[in-house]
Amino acid sequence: MEIKVLESVLRVNEELAKRNRDFFKKKNIYSINIMSSPGAGKTSLVVKTLKRIKDEIKSAVIVGDYTGKIDAERIGKLEIPTLQIETASCHLDANMLSQALKNMDLEDINLLFIENVGNLICPAEYKLGVNKNVVILSTPEGSDKPFKYPLMFSISDVLIINKIDLLGSLDFDIEIVKNTILKLNPKIQIFLMSCKTGEGIDSWTNWIKSELKM
Amino acid sequence: MEIKVLESVLRVNEELAKRNRDFFKKKNIYSINIMSSPGAGKTSLVVKTLKRIKDEIKSAVIVGDYTGKIDAERIGKLEIPTLQIETASCHLDANMLSQALKNMDLEDINLLFIENVGNLICPAEYKLGVNKNVVILSTPEGSDKPFKYPLMFSISDVLIINKIDLLGSLDFDIEIVKNTILKLNPKIQIFLMSCKTGEGIDSWTNWIKSELKM
Repeated sequence: MEIKVLESVLRVNEELAKRNRDFFKKKNIYSINIMSSPGAGKTSLVVKTLKRIKDEIKSAVIVGDYTGKIDAERIGKLEIPTLQIETASCHLDANMLSQALKNMDLEDINLLFIENVGNLICPAEYKLGVNKNVVILSTPEGSDKPFKYPLMFSISDVLIINKIDLLGSLDFDIEIVKNTILKLNPKIQIFLMSCKTGEGIDSWTNWIKSELKM
Repeated sequence: MEIKVLESVLRVNEELAKRNRDFFKKKNIYSINIMSSPGAGKTSLVVKTLKRIKDEIKSAVIVGDYTGKIDAERIGKLEIPTLQIETASCHLDANMLSQALKNMDLEDINLLFIENVGNLICPAEYKLGVNKNVVILSTPEGSDKPFKYPLMFSISDVLIINKIDLLGSLDFDIEIVKNTILKLNPKIQIFLMSCKTGEGIDSWTNWIKSELKM
């Protein structure tokens, strides 16, 4: 019984995700959904990326948080249109995103970052209708995470391995991660990065620009 | 409507949790539910703790994982009774635990570790009926986590701040974390630890022994 309810929830979610996809296409907005464990660096990625590209690309951000607005406040300092959703649950869904889109002025916006709730499970189950799904794996979390959360790593278009500045102090094995991921998801794009030192951010922003055909 | 369904699920869960609590009392088993983000060190904590105390305290482990059995395999090497639950969801619930308890030989067991699914949201909502709830916060996750996941840090009896060996490479501020936590939850016990170097593990195992009146 419980499984049936969940299936119906996910079916409705998928239909709403399609509408979001149509909305983005119509408005010519390239949308990127960023997912990870708590503290892997979603907000840091958004902030560091926008600092580099906000003068070239009209951008906006939607932030999903279980509670509070710490992340939105960090991003708001960049003077980028930012909307916070308090999810009170473990993920964003297509309906929450749709409501947020209705409440933002997105005229002239070309790039939208959606920062999902910190969680490697639920956000993978609820499609949003975005152009690209990005998962961040931070090195202190360990090389076994793609084995343990295969759905998340399968549905993502991009993997960012963040906090590579800590590699010297950890047992994290990039080759194990790459091999596991590429078996699950051979088309995934992989970026190595340290949001702290800035290493690797240029490759990522160049990729965004190429996606936007700039 | 969705909220009503959830409330009813949580009410049933609470009743099952009470039954688990009675079971533990009757069998004289001290049960510890360990929660954290993915990769914060739940399995490492269980392994390192059991290596030190398994000859003194008859112990068993139940491991909840979204999928797979990597963690149970790591723990199983200790030759401790270990049962893996594949949750296919973002948390353990009282019913899953109850089923697991029925499927284990717990005669003579005095200490049971329950390793929850890696997630700071859902496991906090589903009581299990254990003696103590423990949350691990690893230093690379950042000092803001108690602000962002207040339910988890409110319902926990113990906070373990893990990976303190990395403090020199991070901006993590222990005082901020302590101040936030103690406002949310003045009675919480706090342990600083590195499962990697072993620092702080003795205080934790001594605390377990004192709880077991050893």
